[in-house]
Amino acid sequence: MRRVLCLILLLLLPSVLHAESGYDAWLRYAPLDDVSARRYRDAVPPVVIVLGAETPIQSARDELVRGIKGMLNRTPRVESRVSGDAAIVIGTVTQIRQAAPQLAPAGSIETDGFSLRTVRANGARFVVIAAQNDLGVLYGTFAFLRKIAVGESIADLDQKETPYSPIRWINHWDNLDGSIERGYGGRSIFWENGRARQDLSRVTDYGRLLASLGINGCSINNVNADPRVLSPEFLPQIARVAEALRPWGVKVLISVDFGSPRTIGGLTTFDPLDPSVIAFWKNKADEIYRAVPDLGGFVLKADSEGRIGPSAVGRTHADAANVIARALKPHGGLFFYRGFVYDNRMDWRNLKNDRARAAYDNFKDLDGKFDDNVFIQIKNGPIDFQVREPASPLFGTLEKTNQIIELQITQEYMGQARHTVFLVPMWKEVLDFDMKARPGVSTPVKALVTGKTFNRSSGGFVGVSNVGLEESWYGNQLSQANLYGFGRLAWNPDLSSKQIVEEWTRLTFGNDPKVVETIANVQLTSWRTYENYTGPLGLQTLTDIVGNHFGVAVEASERNGWGQWHRADEQGVGMDRSAATGTGFAGQYRPEVAKIYETVENTPDDLLLFMHHVPYTQKLKSGKTVIQYIYDSHYEGAESVEKYVNDWKSLRGRVDDRRYEEVLAQLKYQAGQAIVWRDAVNGWFYKASKIPDARGRVGNYPGRFEAEAASLTGYRVLSVTPFEAASGEKAVECPAGNTCTAAFKFNGQAGWYDITVRYFDVNNGIARYRVRVSGQMVDEWTGADRVPSRRVDSGSSARRIVEGLALRPGDEIQIEGIPNEGETAALDYIEIHPAVN
Amino acid sequence: MRRVLCLILLLLLPSVLHAESGYDAWLRYAPLDDVSARRYRDAVPPVVIVLGAETPIQSARDELVRGIKGMLNRTPRVESRVSGDAAIVIGTVTQIRQAAPQLAPAGSIETDGFSLRTVRANGARFVVIAAQNDLGVLYGTFAFLRKIAVGESIADLDQKETPYSPIRWINHWDNLDGSIERGYGGRSIFWENGRARQDLSRVTDYGRLLASLGINGCSINNVNADPRVLSPEFLPQIARVAEALRPWGVKVLISVDFGSPRTIGGLTTFDPLDPSVIAFWKNKADEIYRAVPDLGGFVLKADSEGRIGPSAVGRTHADAANVIARALKPHGGLFFYRGFVYDNRMDWRNLKNDRARAAYDNFKDLDGKFDDNVFIQIKNGPIDFQVREPASPLFGTLEKTNQIIELQITQEYMGQARHTVFLVPMWKEVLDFDMKARPGVSTPVKALVTGKTFNRSSGGFVGVSNVGLEESWYGNQLSQANLYGFGRLAWNPDLSSKQIVEEWTRLTFGNDPKVVETIANVQLTSWRTYENYTGPLGLQTLTDIVGNHFGVAVEASERNGWGQWHRADEQGVGMDRSAATGTGFAGQYRPEVAKIYETVENTPDDLLLFMHHVPYTQKLKSGKTVIQYIYDSHYEGAESVEKYVNDWKSLRGRVDDRRYEEVLAQLKYQAGQAIVWRDAVNGWFYKASKIPDARGRVGNYPGRFEAEAASLTGYRVLSVTPFEAASGEKAVECPAGNTCTAAFKFNGQAGWYDITVRYFDVNNGIARYRVRVSGQMVDEWTGADRVPSRRVDSGSSARRIVEGLALRPGDEIQIEGIPNEGETAALDYIEIHPAVN
Repeated sequence: MRRVLCLILLLLLPSVLHAESGYDAWLRYAPLDDVSARRYRDAVPPVVIVLGAETPIQSARDELVRGIKGMLNRTPRVESRVSGDAAIVIGTVTQIRQAAPQLAPAGSIETDGFSLRTVRANGARFVVIAAQNDLGVLYGTFAFLRKIAVGESIADLDQKETPYSPIRWINHWDNLDGSIERGYGGRSIFWENGRARQDLSRVTDYGRLLASLGINGCSINNVNADPRVLSPEFLPQIARVAEALRPWGVKVLISVDFGSPRTIGGLTTFDPLDPSVIAFWKNKADEIYRAVPDLGGFVLKADSEGRIGPSAVGRTHADAANVIARALKPHGGLFFYRGFVYDNRMDWRNLKNDRARAAYDNFKDLDGKFDDNVFIQIKNGPIDFQVREPASPLFGTLEKTNQIIELQITQEYMGQARHTVFLVPMWKEVLDFDMKARPGVSTPVKALVTGKTFNRSSGGFVGVSNVGLEESWYGNQLSQANLYGFGRLAWNPDLSSKQIVEEWTRLTFGNDPKVVETIANVQLTSWRTYENYTGPLGLQTLTDIVGNHFGVAVEASERNGWGQWHRADEQGVGMDRSAATGTGFAGQYRPEVAKIYETVENTPDDLLLFMHHVPYTQKLKSGKTVIQYIYDSHYEGAESVEKYVNDWKSLRGRVDDRRYEEVLAQLKYQAGQAIVWRDAVNGWFYKASKIPDARGRVGNYPGRFEAEAASLTGYRVLSVTPFEAASGEKAVECPAGNTCTAAFKFNGQAGWYDITVRYFDVNNGIARYRVRVSGQMVDEWTGADRVPSRRVDSGSSARRIVEGLALRPGDEIQIEGIPNEGETAALDYIEIHPAVN
Repeated sequence: MRRVLCLILLLLLPSVLHAESGYDAWLRYAPLDDVSARRYRDAVPPVVIVLGAETPIQSARDELVRGIKGMLNRTPRVESRVSGDAAIVIGTVTQIRQAAPQLAPAGSIETDGFSLRTVRANGARFVVIAAQNDLGVLYGTFAFLRKIAVGESIADLDQKETPYSPIRWINHWDNLDGSIERGYGGRSIFWENGRARQDLSRVTDYGRLLASLGINGCSINNVNADPRVLSPEFLPQIARVAEALRPWGVKVLISVDFGSPRTIGGLTTFDPLDPSVIAFWKNKADEIYRAVPDLGGFVLKADSEGRIGPSAVGRTHADAANVIARALKPHGGLFFYRGFVYDNRMDWRNLKNDRARAAYDNFKDLDGKFDDNVFIQIKNGPIDFQVREPASPLFGTLEKTNQIIELQITQEYMGQARHTVFLVPMWKEVLDFDMKARPGVSTPVKALVTGKTFNRSSGGFVGVSNVGLEESWYGNQLSQANLYGFGRLAWNPDLSSKQIVEEWTRLTFGNDPKVVETIANVQLTSWRTYENYTGPLGLQTLTDIVGNHFGVAVEASERNGWGQWHRADEQGVGMDRSAATGTGFAGQYRPEVAKIYETVENTPDDLLLFMHHVPYTQKLKSGKTVIQYIYDSHYEGAESVEKYVNDWKSLRGRVDDRRYEEVLAQLKYQAGQAIVWRDAVNGWFYKASKIPDARGRVGNYPGRFEAEAASLTGYRVLSVTPFEAASGEKAVECPAGNTCTAAFKFNGQAGWYDITVRYFDVNNGIARYRVRVSGQMVDEWTGADRVPSRRVDSGSSARRIVEGLALRPGDEIQIEGIPNEGETAALDYIEIHPAVN
């Protein structure tokens, strides 16, 4: 008992230690304002009665005490027997029926679901949190606390919740050395130097965040799996992580390597039909389950992007999946086979080739061949987490196979947490998209992936989370909303984006209406904004797809085997995926859907260039031409981010200083990057199409002075690759060991001006910059930001705005650059505009 | 030129690095709100013309650029020639007359003074900051920037300022090892391990703060001086500090040891009339001035508190002072001889003995015997920086001797920066007190100490500052106001306390009217509040005067030779200092003043017990008895601090988070300490007088349960010394190596309660505490606060409030204590009250 009570107290500490760093995310339990606190203090009974010793129920109890103490400054009594006093009672229905039948809910509650009820018995008022199982008790407790935090009434509770999806899991792409593939919030919370980290308290705190959303499983290593994960020496490491997550009812899964029978097992083959391989997987599963009896199962990426798979030994995906699934079966383990299988060496010259077809082509004929504990894990779109894709046709195809949808929470193609992109609206478009898979009934993706359409026993949601050791988990305070939104959708995909983001904002930043409105608006429009400047009309994210997936590189997708082609050339743009004249991808959908995508006329503008190749002058449904839409959307996107910055500034003093400053810095950075994207994409398409911007903006930048046209001392002109990454296609670089200057003449009217310096901040050096106006030094900084680029390109393109300078005609503006290591103090341009602030 | 321009930029950095830590104090130059910024941008010309190469003028230039950039987001052009364009012109009158006679002010400006004028010439608008000398240019620049920061109009400037006092200096009691005697803001900014610190940038930043107030000198080592300060090896250390302060026009002074001719000079005597001693001081002065040509002079504490002095060799203070002063004279150095000379081994049984007489008795007969570069440095009161003292009679006595007033900025007897006490109102009472020293004219202390009354050529103010390495300089954000107030008074003692504190608040926390009003109110009432609970009616600070000068110890002043007697006994209280029946101290004042203090009837209540011994039943002018006033004022004081806490809470979001939290924690601590003082002082006087509190509070504490009366396991009862430091005169202690518990029975009504645990947090250990309610752990903490006590006494008395607990009749409340090193997890009592928040 003492140990348990200690735990309650220890759990109170982090909220103090990590106050307003973002560490506690949406579980801050910040004190309510006086009026609200008084209201809830009257409504919350002073006693918590806990009817169950299961770990998740004990966690629920601790959370109740923590939440009520945090929000209401009240520590309720914890008891284990129902007396006549008003109390919050938590337990399973069975436990409540036994201890206090008068408080038990009528009817049944589904697995993991819960009911919240206010019950009056013998003159006392009870809040009863009841569930079918211990996890449900925990989820009901979080739901109860959430109500208080967002300001909902708890006076007369009478509600029941059932999770929409049985599988609500998280994937991590963490490598055992502690790095994370596509992780933008720091190093791994699980691994360090090939072992579980010494201190796994972060993992437990993460488990709490997951549990608060109803997430009940978590794979803990990269799908590009290190075979060592299955070695006997490594099992205790997995067991330690499982132990850290167990209090929160989050099961551990591991990603495995299909070649393990050979690499780990010492066999000569990994042929799934070979008896020795079958025995290997069986023994391996038995061994792991001895160490981690509640392991959730395995995840496998095979025959994809260089990963070994069944094709190497002439077997099918079903052969591969079933052998491992059968080994897991006796232990109740599930097996997730990633549908992300494609050929990355396709011939781009063949216009019939199409990576988007791959999942369907690989798995359609295997439908019905998979064991019942196998799940095909299908990404939302047919390519790879691009800024906009249609729903994968495979969702509507598999009728006799379990499936789950894989959504990417980590923002790989979505600005890598340096841009704010709230993904829930995007996910909802896919989840709500009706695949017309069964006549006469609605068959949205959410129903298909949870097995409802074809009466499968299971299915669900998996999100690629990739949190890291940074206090904010994601390296961007606003990015936490994506994990929150994923969890809420997995629980209930019928929630609206607005409901979700407002709930998240209230929990994370408080109930100030101005704060809620402002943040919700930024989040809700952020996806469209990002799409506007990175890849509108179904172009996909026009990023460096063979590099860091961060900066702009319009042609990086072309003329290689990776198949993310948009096929833009001098005549037109887009990929013809029609059945009639194109790759036939549109025909992979059920006829009613195929009809939509088959023709230019029927295809929605947002996916036009994903489905069709059209001339730049093609008119959209709005009447605008494709090229003009590209130009306009990029200006609109950049302006939107600039507006986010100003909107955010109105929250000073309404949001704590630390997070205020962090988000402000992030949004300012994003505003600068949006301009890079705008100019690069528009510049590229202008060069290709030769069609000028009807509004005269593209290629015409008032107040801009190119560095390559400046009076240079030491600096050398560099042709940037890709050309669109630099204004005027050129930059200037300073050779190592020198101090270089670029001097510009100002000939405008005397007055107050802002000077924007566009320079390149690569991640393998810290150059120093100085700005002088006719000899007077007016600013100085170093290029020390963390950006994922080692090259002079759009990813490293950074800006410094020197505000409020008194300029006179004839002034010489001199930028001095001093290189450091790999950073060449490169400059793109300066812009001079009348002072804004 | 480049070096100079770099300097401008470097000066821009600290405000970013130390944002809202308190480091930049009142020189934050925080951005103004948009409306104000727009107004000032129109009024501030875009060019700064600097007419002078002197270091302080260069500093003024950098400060102008920094301030305008910070507040208005504008970087003006810096030029050195007047053109036709609108500009801010800074320079001495001579420089301006030469460069632009049309801009020069008419008439003369006094030394260190300045004029601020708006001048229109040839159609352009100039802001002209002119001064007689370079320091005045710097001071005028700070005054100009201050106007912008506090929101004063700068549209049509036409003002002239002259400092009231020529000497506006600071003393530091820093030891060469880096410790500070009576320093509460961390270790020395000057010294470390017997040398100047490697990094003296803090000293330069401190110089900037001083210069902004017009402070022009600073002694840099303890008046209890280490003789080594005069050794040849040490001179370079002094020179380094002088160099760090020089950009801000702050001269360095050093404190010397009168025994130096023997200890450093190798002589057999330090007799000031001995030729070898005379030669020693002359040579030493010559040597120092070679290293530091602009040294301000020396400070000497002699014949006081164990310091060696002229009495040891049968010489007078004048003999001692003049020999050193003459050595300094050729270099323009000044010599400060501290008037703080008294016998600390006085016989307390002799009712005629009186330490308060000492300064007068020592120096009166020497009036006229001191050289003209000698200043007698006189503390504001006749004792030693107590919470209330009358003005020292010596101020009104010396007619032919230079004097300066010594004020203590560091809060030695004023809560040591753990209590907020704004000292300006106290200083002003002394400065404005008319000593009636010359018939027919007003002779307030401020006039006397600046030489105005008796036509001395000089005089002024010195403040004991003792800032430290903590980012806030004083360890309490609100304590900075005392340094600010000292500087402002030294410049202009006619400023009101309200003017000063509002100005400081605007500069330090911004112009939000609610912030200004709230903070100004706390500050302006804080001295009376502190007096109310630590020593009303002229009792002096009832602290542990033989110990840490922090906690309460009513009798610590009695029955010893230190002479801070209040002579409270069973019959009455106060020290009879009348000429008629007492020590004769009152007679040291000029007759008109002496008449006031001579009788009980004429003496103001606030000084009654300083001047007279009266029965407890003596009626005050208000009609209240002395004893009831003591009781009431202590309750009032404690309630005021509690109100400060609540007032401060209303500033959340209006003040930056960091300083908000720091001040909140400080005020909460002070509120707890005020209760200790209240109960201790009242308890002592109740025990002595046996007269009950008319309002029934003293000795009667509803909801309080003494630890010594609890059910103890392991804990042992301890009689606390002094008895009043613990409630019920007793505490309980846990022997090392044990875990102890004190258990209390709750028998009130069921409901929500707050439990206050009063424990002892000494500074030589970190004990752990836990609170359980009927077995449930509800709180846990460690005694890790920094307080200046190693003993179980009122200084270490701390409180923890466990808020919002659900209690029921019959509950056992158990406090568990685990000692650590010297900390015995000692408990005084608990209090149980209905929950407040």
